[in-house]
Amino acid sequence: MPNPTAAMLVIGDEILSGRTRDSNMHHLAGVLTKKGIDLAEVRVVADDRAAIVAAVQALSGAWDHVFTSGGIGPTHDDITADCIAEAFGAAIDVRADARALLAAHYKRTGGELNEARLRMARIPDGAILIDNPVSIAPGFSIGNVHVMAGVPAVFEAMVATVMPQLTGGAPLQSDTVRIDRGEGDIAQVLTGLAKAHPELSIGSYPFQRKGKFGSNIVIRGSDAAAISMVRAALLEAFAGDAE
Amino acid sequence: MPNPTAAMLVIGDEILSGRTRDSNMHHLAGVLTKKGIDLAEVRVVADDRAAIVAAVQALSGAWDHVFTSGGIGPTHDDITADCIAEAFGAAIDVRADARALLAAHYKRTGGELNEARLRMARIPDGAILIDNPVSIAPGFSIGNVHVMAGVPAVFEAMVATVMPQLTGGAPLQSDTVRIDRGEGDIAQVLTGLAKAHPELSIGSYPFQRKGKFGSNIVIRGSDAAAISMVRAALLEAFAGDAE
Repeated sequence: MPNPTAAMLVIGDEILSGRTRDSNMHHLAGVLTKKGIDLAEVRVVADDRAAIVAAVQALSGAWDHVFTSGGIGPTHDDITADCIAEAFGAAIDVRADARALLAAHYKRTGGELNEARLRMARIPDGAILIDNPVSIAPGFSIGNVHVMAGVPAVFEAMVATVMPQLTGGAPLQSDTVRIDRGEGDIAQVLTGLAKAHPELSIGSYPFQRKGKFGSNIVIRGSDAAAISMVRAALLEAFAGDAE
Repeated sequence: MPNPTAAMLVIGDEILSGRTRDSNMHHLAGVLTKKGIDLAEVRVVADDRAAIVAAVQALSGAWDHVFTSGGIGPTHDDITADCIAEAFGAAIDVRADARALLAAHYKRTGGELNEARLRMARIPDGAILIDNPVSIAPGFSIGNVHVMAGVPAVFEAMVATVMPQLTGGAPLQSDTVRIDRGEGDIAQVLTGLAKAHPELSIGSYPFQRKGKFGSNIVIRGSDAAAISMVRAALLEAFAGDAE
């Protein structure tokens, strides 16, 4: 059975303007790979209602799971929750369970649960809250879409909350062979190995180090013996330059 | 007149599996912002023909420029050039001008221009080559799509080649005010300022440092005087916590 699939939607002008370097994509990619869920597509869109709604609908229809990051805070530019509701045709308002979480938190810390912070309790009808152990204001799951904060510490905590609830596939095994030759010198051997082992995915990732080109060959699949055979073939073909 | 718009398409299994952390998006975002071209959307797709063709067609139709990274090397998993040709309905083959560049390079360096390396001279009919001062194998522009390598040093060199040929807009001015309070404490003031200055974009970007929450307020627009007024209003409203 093929692995479940997933997409990620990163929401935020600050990523597209180059002000902020996104780190949530790389984090989620690693977590999903370990879980045996294949991340098939990522999109980054601006804080723009039409763009968010269209992307949520496209990704939600195409893949098993969608993970969003960003735009669920208390300020005027945080419009993700309302856009998700629109994408699903769901009503949205301040919800009692989310409000209770925030009220208890601000009572404990002496902060004020003002109108702005109450925006963080706006949850679409039918959504399930995602626990936020870092800063309390919850994310939520609706349909196959998991809506999470953009601040990396909060995003990562919410991913950790959601992941055990999902059914993973077979985590792929993988092995990497580093070859200190440019891709052009090894491509023919790689093509032969890829044809001989259609059950494996063999990827070539060039790098440049100290002015010299090399290639990392990543061999992926569920057949550990086949992966070992390809590794051995590469070490033999490029003896002295491969490890 | 509004600024020109752009999208980026990152191509590569290695980004989606979490093996590689993409840095090209952040680089391109910064370059485009300086140039006055608005990066409106980014997509990341796998080394998959149908996914690449569909994304190129969607992005090319929606935005003024599209920049791609990845998948133009010599190995079997480098399929970007052929997918771009398919997306534009253009023929593709080894082209004399690209072949000549590679032949001269490998003659100079003593390498062999073998069948695999010749794949890097596959250029769609009607495309214009993009110079690659780092490793010679060229990128290309066809229609409004600029096709570049994934290796960051090569990607950045190709971006530097392409950028002077594009017409930019008015680079936005921007100013950032750091406020050592959580977003919930400042949201009401921000909403008021955003309403009073519809000509500006005021974004709030929360951060967490040493266990405390704060917010960077980024004020963007072409009216420097208005930006200064908003800065002054924030410093006054949050005196002692803002700088």
